[in-house]
Amino acid sequence: MTIVKEVLEIAEKIKNMEIRGAGKIARSAALALQIQAEKSNAKNEDEFWNEMKEAAKLLYNTRPTAVSLPNALRYVMYRVKLTYNGGASLDEIKFMATNSAKEFIHNSENAVKKIAEFGAKRVEDGDIIMTHCHSSAAVGVMKKAWEEGKDIKVIVTETRPRYQGKITAKQLAEAGIPVIYVVDGAARHYMKMTDKVIMGADTITANGAVINKIGTALIALTAKEHRVWVMTAAETYKFHPETLLGQLVEIEERDPYEVVPKEELATWPKNIVVKNPAFDVTPPEYVDVIITEKGVIPPYAAIDILKDEFGWALKYREPWED
Amino acid sequence: MTIVKEVLEIAEKIKNMEIRGAGKIARSAALALQIQAEKSNAKNEDEFWNEMKEAAKLLYNTRPTAVSLPNALRYVMYRVKLTYNGGASLDEIKFMATNSAKEFIHNSENAVKKIAEFGAKRVEDGDIIMTHCHSSAAVGVMKKAWEEGKDIKVIVTETRPRYQGKITAKQLAEAGIPVIYVVDGAARHYMKMTDKVIMGADTITANGAVINKIGTALIALTAKEHRVWVMTAAETYKFHPETLLGQLVEIEERDPYEVVPKEELATWPKNIVVKNPAFDVTPPEYVDVIITEKGVIPPYAAIDILKDEFGWALKYREPWED
Ligand SMILES: Nc1ncnc2c1ncn2[C@@H]1O[C@H](COP(=O)(O)O)[C@@H](O)[C@H]1O
Ligand SMILES: Nc1ncnc2c1ncn2[C@@H]1O[C@H](COP(=O)(O)O)[C@@H](O)[C@H]1O
Repeated sequence: MTIVKEVLEIAEKIKNMEIRGAGKIARSAALALQIQAEKSNAKNEDEFWNEMKEAAKLLYNTRPTAVSLPNALRYVMYRVKLTYNGGASLDEIKFMATNSAKEFIHNSENAVKKIAEFGAKRVEDGDIIMTHCHSSAAVGVMKKAWEEGKDIKVIVTETRPRYQGKITAKQLAEAGIPVIYVVDGAARHYMKMTDKVIMGADTITANGAVINKIGTALIALTAKEHRVWVMTAAETYKFHPETLLGQLVEIEERDPYEVVPKEELATWPKNIVVKNPAFDVTPPEYVDVIITEKGVIPPYAAIDILKDEFGWALKYREPWED
Repeated sequence: MTIVKEVLEIAEKIKNMEIRGAGKIARSAALALQIQAEKSNAKNEDEFWNEMKEAAKLLYNTRPTAVSLPNALRYVMYRVKLTYNGGASLDEIKFMATNSAKEFIHNSENAVKKIAEFGAKRVEDGDIIMTHCHSSAAVGVMKKAWEEGKDIKVIVTETRPRYQGKITAKQLAEAGIPVIYVVDGAARHYMKMTDKVIMGADTITANGAVINKIGTALIALTAKEHRVWVMTAAETYKFHPETLLGQLVEIEERDPYEVVPKEELATWPKNIVVKNPAFDVTPPEYVDVIITEKGVIPPYAAIDILKDEFGWALKYREPWED
């Protein structure tokens, strides 16, 4: 039983963060499984299946927190397992492996484009849109609407502590869209003139809660208060299957020096603790729709995405576990 | 008819911002009226009254936006006018002028202390308090509760763009209070562990809306959502009488370079406009109580403060106008 060289290399690159970003990590993991299947010398179905499981486990253990990586593995391995359990031949299982991997990569590459298409239909001429942080999917929606000739304007919040709002503001402005750039605290002040809120997501839970950059929940809350639609742009590999088993998503705590520079903090009284949670949780009732590449769904339908991709909770086990 | 030298000097110092800060400006204006009354050479009631009016107008025109300055003038002049209209003697009117001025200054100096006393009673042992920006009155409440032996902890938001949260965090920490310092966007994430919100105010309107540092309304909103009490600490001279006549409070727009440094902004695409409103408006329904030096009132009782200080709207005219 051998794991091919390319798989080991990709695993290493994910681990040391040479490969980074939710989409890239997921596609690289799928590609690794594809290569494993293509280059396999396995003599029979069992040997092949065991190789695939080992490769998946290896990849899984590189970055345990990002949901996109296990999701890519699950997409492929769930299909391979079904075929294997169904008594298919070695060639049939191999085909399923390489084909599902290619399918995942294709879907992932097209997801942002599809989301832009679907989301842009919900943007109307003259809309003032508010967004937060930087999300390729959300930016895609706004650029698409603009390209379709809709006269929009976007309010971008700076997004402390790392100011990802700057990336968003520049990308939109370079596409020609007029941008108003404000501090995060100004969200309620500007909500009165806002028609739609479009933001991205890091993770979507089984009950439709949206985990995204800190500050997202405040904007969604005041949007709801103002009856302004909140649209979350999220590829389906952001949906978190373990939450269907009750698991809570870990909210990453980042370095306090992102908030207060180290040298400055050194001079502060010791009973000031600087906290830096990277994400907050927006409850589903504040989100109107999640725009996925499969369709525009209510957040409560997150369960349907998970069922489709990974099967029901009670049947659920990592496809590479026995 | 003469305006005494000291009044001209004080007016000049307020104008060129040698005298600054809501409280100091108000007390200096009252002091100017006191000196005007004490040093007056007026021969009769009419002459004295006209001098006082001229002095008040002069002071009024130095800084037209800050509400504390006209409020100090109104406090004194309203009482002087009543006495004058009531047919009192020159000496009686003079006494009313100097006495009301001293009263205003005394009240103002004691207001923060009184607010601390009243507010601290609403803080309970073990409370986790959230605050925003820097307010001497709000800090006073928290320090007083701590001095009374209540074991509190305070979550302080940094308050972009000018980071006044740093001043608050340090003042509380130096008093011994444990502080958690976070970005403004983290307010909803930390609201679940928060027991009380205590913030200051720049201006209170006749219908109890609180105008305060940008970001305040978001915190009040999520506090309301979590059934966490919002307490606004505000001296009565922050109450805005013209709002009783329908006037809207102007929301000051400050320099965009406070948000994005000038050199950086110069390199940005020209269709990004940086906006920097200094304040937002919190509707009265999100505020549980306003803690004033006169008592702890529901925001809807702002009207009672205004009536008490300035009389009813229909009767209302600047006391130095004819
Ligand atoms: N760490 C977490 N992981 C997964 N779901 C969460 C987590 N925290 C909160 N939720 C869900 O997000 C929502 C939080 O709503 P709220 O209590 O209004 O903030 C609820 O639907 C919770 O089930
Ligand atoms: N510029 C302003 N000056 C005075 N009151 C205001 C101003 N803007 C809003 N308000 C009041 O503040 C509250 C705003 O509530 P909301 O519409 O929920 O933000 C209302 O009570 C308004 O009457």
